[in-house]
Order: sequence, then C-alpha cells, then structure tokens
Amino acid sequence: MKRIIGLMSGTSADGVDAAVVDVWGKGLSTRFRMIAFESVPYPKRTRQLILSLLNARGISVAEISQLNFLIGHLFAEAVLRCCRRHHITLKSVDLIGSHGQTVYHQSVPSFFGGRALASTLQLGEGAVIAERTGIATISDFRVRDVAAGGTGAPLVPYVDYLLLRSPSKNRVALNVGGIANLTSIPRNCRLAELRAFDTGPGNMMMDAAVAIRSRGKLKFDRHGALASRGRVIPSALEWLLTHPFYRRRPPKAAGREQFGIEYTEAALRQMRFARVEDVLATLLDLTARTVLAAIKKYAVPSGPIDELIVSGGGARNRFLMQRLQFLLPETRVMNSSELGIDPDAKEAIAFAILANETWHQDPANVPSVTGARHPVILGKITPA
Amino acid sequence: MKRIIGLMSGTSADGVDAAVVDVWGKGLSTRFRMIAFESVPYPKRTRQLILSLLNARGISVAEISQLNFLIGHLFAEAVLRCCRRHHITLKSVDLIGSHGQTVYHQSVPSFFGGRALASTLQLGEGAVIAERTGIATISDFRVRDVAAGGTGAPLVPYVDYLLLRSPSKNRVALNVGGIANLTSIPRNCRLAELRAFDTGPGNMMMDAAVAIRSRGKLKFDRHGALASRGRVIPSALEWLLTHPFYRRRPPKAAGREQFGIEYTEAALRQMRFARVEDVLATLLDLTARTVLAAIKKYAVPSGPIDELIVSGGGARNRFLMQRLQFLLPETRVMNSSELGIDPDAKEAIAFAILANETWHQDPANVPSVTGARHPVILGKITPA
Repeated sequence: MKRIIGLMSGTSADGVDAAVVDVWGKGLSTRFRMIAFESVPYPKRTRQLILSLLNARGISVAEISQLNFLIGHLFAEAVLRCCRRHHITLKSVDLIGSHGQTVYHQSVPSFFGGRALASTLQLGEGAVIAERTGIATISDFRVRDVAAGGTGAPLVPYVDYLLLRSPSKNRVALNVGGIANLTSIPRNCRLAELRAFDTGPGNMMMDAAVAIRSRGKLKFDRHGALASRGRVIPSALEWLLTHPFYRRRPPKAAGREQFGIEYTEAALRQMRFARVEDVLATLLDLTARTVLAAIKKYAVPSGPIDELIVSGGGARNRFLMQRLQFLLPETRVMNSSELGIDPDAKEAIAFAILANETWHQDPANVPSVTGARHPVILGKITPA
Repeated sequence: MKRIIGLMSGTSADGVDAAVVDVWGKGLSTRFRMIAFESVPYPKRTRQLILSLLNARGISVAEISQLNFLIGHLFAEAVLRCCRRHHITLKSVDLIGSHGQTVYHQSVPSFFGGRALASTLQLGEGAVIAERTGIATISDFRVRDVAAGGTGAPLVPYVDYLLLRSPSKNRVALNVGGIANLTSIPRNCRLAELRAFDTGPGNMMMDAAVAIRSRGKLKFDRHGALASRGRVIPSALEWLLTHPFYRRRPPKAAGREQFGIEYTEAALRQMRFARVEDVLATLLDLTARTVLAAIKKYAVPSGPIDELIVSGGGARNRFLMQRLQFLLPETRVMNSSELGIDPDAKEAIAFAILANETWHQDPANVPSVTGARHPVILGKITPA
C-alpha cells in the first residue's frame, strides 16, 4: 500500500483540493480508499493576483518565477492543513501527485521562434512542495503528453479506465464541473477504445445566470431547487442548441471562451422576460440534453449504457440527476460515491492515482483521447 | 558505469554546451571520462528572442510557456547533434542532466503575494528533452536549494569537491568565464569546509573593452596577446580596485549588473588616452589581482595553496595564466585539463555529475556555500 496525496486546482483558481488516498496495486489492479479530503481556498488577494496575472497581457519573468514558488507554498500548505486536521502524520505519506495551477494551455501548435509549437504550463513548484512536506512530489503531468504530440488533456480518463472498467457493464463517467465532460468505458474495453471529451456547459451557465439574476446574492442553484420549479422555454432552448460546439466531433474541449459570462448574457437576452426558475430549468435542460446527445452519438456505439456515473458539483444537483435519469430511462444514473469515489474529490483522487502509475513507471496518457503519438509516463519526480 | 549527458547554457544565452560523460561510482568515489563535447549555438533569431523576452518588462504567459518548450527542443537537438557527430547511440546514454536556461534568479527574498519569497526559474522543458531523446532527464537543479533557504547557486563547488579534493594538496578551482569564481578545497576537507564565491570580473571587461576599442572587429583578446604587449596603468588599476564588490565578504555573486558594459565604459573613460594594449594589460591585471586577493583573504586559512586549477575561457588566455603564476609563486597554476577536465566543458560535465548524484538519491548542494538550511537532493526526474 502507498499513501498518496493528490492535489488539484482547476481553471477557476479557487484554491487547492487535497485528497489523501491509500492505493493498493497499480494499473487495472489498482484499488484505493480515500482517507481525507480538504478544499483549501486560495487567500483572496492571492486569487486576485493569480487571475490578474493570467489575464494581463504583460507580466514580468520575475512575477512568473515568484508565482511558481508562491503557488508551490500554497499547495504545500494545503497538504499540511489537510494532514493536521485529519490527524495524518506526514511520515505516513509516501507520495504527492500535484496537478498545479494551469496558467497556459495551447495544444494546437502555433508559430513561435521559427517553429510550430504546442505548449502547456502549470505553476506550483514541486521542489517547494517536496521541501515543505518532506514528501516526494510528482508534478507537471501534462507536459509530456504535449511533447509527444498530444493535447495534454484530459488525463482523468485513464483513471476512469482503471477504476470504472467493468467486465459486464457499459459505463459512462460524467463529470459536471463548470464544463461537463465524459469518459465512455465500454464493457471489457481496451484502453484504446476509451472516448473522452467535453459535452458543453456543466454548471457554468447556470451559475452565471443565477448570479446575474440575483445580483450576486446567489452563487448557484442549490440542488437545482429553482430549476425544479421552472419550465423549459422551448424557443430559448432551441437557440442555445444552435451553438456550433455541439455539432463538432470529438475530441473537443470547451471552456469560458465558449460558455462563459458573455455567452450566458447573450442567452439571458433570449429569456429577458422569463422568471429565473424558467431560465434555470432551460439551462439545466441544456446541460442534460447535450450530455444525452453526446452519449447517443459518440459514447458506446455497440450498445446501451448500463451506468452513468456522475461526479463534480453537478452530482449534487438533484434535479439535474433526475433529469438525466428521465432522459436515459435504460441507464442507471448514479452518484460516483456509490462506487466509492467522492464526487467532489474525484479529480484530486485522480492525480494521486496518476502519481502511483508514474511511481511504477507505467504510462498513463490515453493516446486515443489526447492524440499523443504513443503512451508516455507522466510527470516529473522531485525526490523527498 | 553510467553514460550521462550534461547540458548547460550560461547567462549570456549563446547556446547549449553538451558533454557526454561516462561516470563510475558516486560521491567521493566518482570517476569520469568525457567522451564527447559540443557547443551548439542558439539560432540567431532564437537568441534574439530569448534576450528580448528576458529584457522585456512585459511578456505574456503564452510566451513563457512556448519559450520553455522551444528551449527544450533546442537542448534536445544539441543532444541529438552531439551524439550523431560523435557516433554515440542514444540507446547507450542512461541519463541527461540539463541545467536549462536561467531566465530569473532572485535568491534574496522579496515581497510577493503577501509573503517574502525567493525564487529561481530555468526554462528548457525536461519532458521535451526526454521525449525527443528517449533518455531520462533531470532538470531544474536550482529550485530545491532555493526552496530550502539557499541561494540556489553556485552548484559546481560540490562537483569540485568530488573531483578535486586531495588528501595532500590544498587546491583552489578557478573558473574564469565572464565573471571569475573560485572554490577553495583544503586538503582532506569536509564538505562544510568548502568556500566558493565570485571574485569579480573574469573575461567580461576585457572582452567588452576590446570589442569597444576595435569597434566590434575583435570579440576577445586571443591568448591575451594584446595584453601581453601592454603595460598596466597604475592610476586606472587603483580606480578599478575601489569597486566595493572586492571588499564584500563571501558568499557573494557578481554579474553584468556590476561589471558589464556600463562599468567597462566608465573604466575606459579612466584610460581615454591609453593604447588598447595597456588597457587590456590593466584589465587582465585586475582579474588576476582580485583572484589573488580573494585567495589570500578567504580561500584556505590554514596554509598556502598547492594548486590553482583553472577552467573556463580564461584558461586559454596564456598571459593571464602567466600573470596568475607570477602572483602566486608558491602555487602550481594549471589548466584543469591536466586533471582530465576539459576547461571549456567543465560546467556541462558538472551537470552530468550532479545528475548522477540525483540518480543515486544523494544530496548535492553545499549548504556552507549556498546558505541552505540542510543538504537536499537536486533536480526533478522526467522518466525516459
């Protein structure tokens, strides 16, 4: 058994998720148990600093260098805090797998210094994490896949394969964060049969709409309570479904560029006179329907889905879960916790398990998903 | 035996030095043989790009990310070229130790994001080097020492200790690059007895002066030929020796900030009416005398120096070597090649040997030199 801490910070740069995971075995024989989980927000001014640096066109090399060390300290402190709170000694931890904070990701090569280059950059210095915790740290998981011609993302599908592949069931893992993404895992599949891609907005537009309509009083529609009292507005839904992203073939990735504030404001203009309940019902239906369409079109060509395993904040949206179940009557729609995967901790757990694979020198990218030329071992190892 | 390639690029960002080194053992039992060496200049526009990005106050995160990958490709190509030219198969190489290109180094903590932070940043993505060569790559040697409260530099003294420590001789290793630095290695010393610091200008002011006086026709005074035909100008030498750097106690580091073009121009104004030969004789004497003074004051308090082992471009300056020998009559002034260390390849060799230490999980910083709180294993390992 290895005790591994997975660290994750998403593109919204809210803070650090830390999951302490006991891992047995490796590859398809991986078994795990989560011991502790903490979500440690960045200090407010640090978050502002990160966001302002990311959005600024001009930044000094000094700021990038210092930010790399600063984020390293914040990640290390998330480890220290999580272990202290849950009475876990640092000595009992064998390894840290740290995703870091993505500050740049460009998987389509662009011209730079006389050649076509793709690149990705995660900050959060691994040496700072290893130094402050005394624990060997694996960081920079995405760079090698990009160096091998891949998109460097998504990386979680490999973990879905290890944890959710079933000899008898066709499964789809659905993560509903700001963006919704899925991994299709046909029964008994080989790694190369995985499909994984973004389906469109997850909570992003719902969160933005409720914040705008409540003038910032509400940050999200808890459990989908508002949406459950509303009615879908057919004309608005029709307008929303014309977004070209849904027609694109996978692999495909979405973000704020497609479904952020600006697009949500445009959508709200389509529903100018509607009650907020109806707006949310419509946006929730958009998420559910685009997931459904993606599954039907691209998931498991060979048969019906037996289980849809939902994680991310959206798994706590009861009305969304109901809606998905209604749209997929032959499928069991379930929270990932039923399979022992805390839906909020899933990504942090995934980086603990990816670190375990790296430690065993096993490749853990999925070339059929990222487009890499071949399997590669992910990450860089900073010794304890 | 391990075959290791050391990769180095200095602050002048001229290009990549690649040394292929066969290494036996580790620690004080390290033995090595250099098999091949190549100095591969950066393409002209790449160098301009690097320098312009470094000097620019405003750079985008995208440019830093792409530059990290671009420099990784250039380092990888230096490996490929060196191996091809010298008929070394990539398969025969076990490991790469890559210093990368320093783009920021601030070892004195400054206030950032609400805390005092030191940081250092080397670019040249290790995952790109590992991917393109198929060889496990150790990179980012300086970050861990900085994370442990050290200055992150110099790192070569540890290698001087491994290769030059003698049971019977007091030795000083002197590297004369743009800046001159030395490592004092008393006979039979422990690691904690090492002293290492910059002594002042090496070739930097001589190179700048000859370039200015020849209007760019000459880049340096080959073998010190011009200086050997000149006479020291006492008033100018006196003025030069008033620079406060020489009075500071070690540890201390110098750079272009102290002894670059601007200071050289000020020095040339002191010697306005002098022949170029006399100017160079004076500047060469400055280098030699400040090395001498540093040795007398700070090197080996317990006795005379038996051997001064010179490397770097300055080792090829015959007149400088003569001058050092004249000033140190009791010491044998020798080229490092006499001890099997190619003076031009020394730093690249050093990073091969540091990679070997990391591979064996041995700490390789020198806390008495960098000020780190404790010994640490250097670098990050990207698997093959």
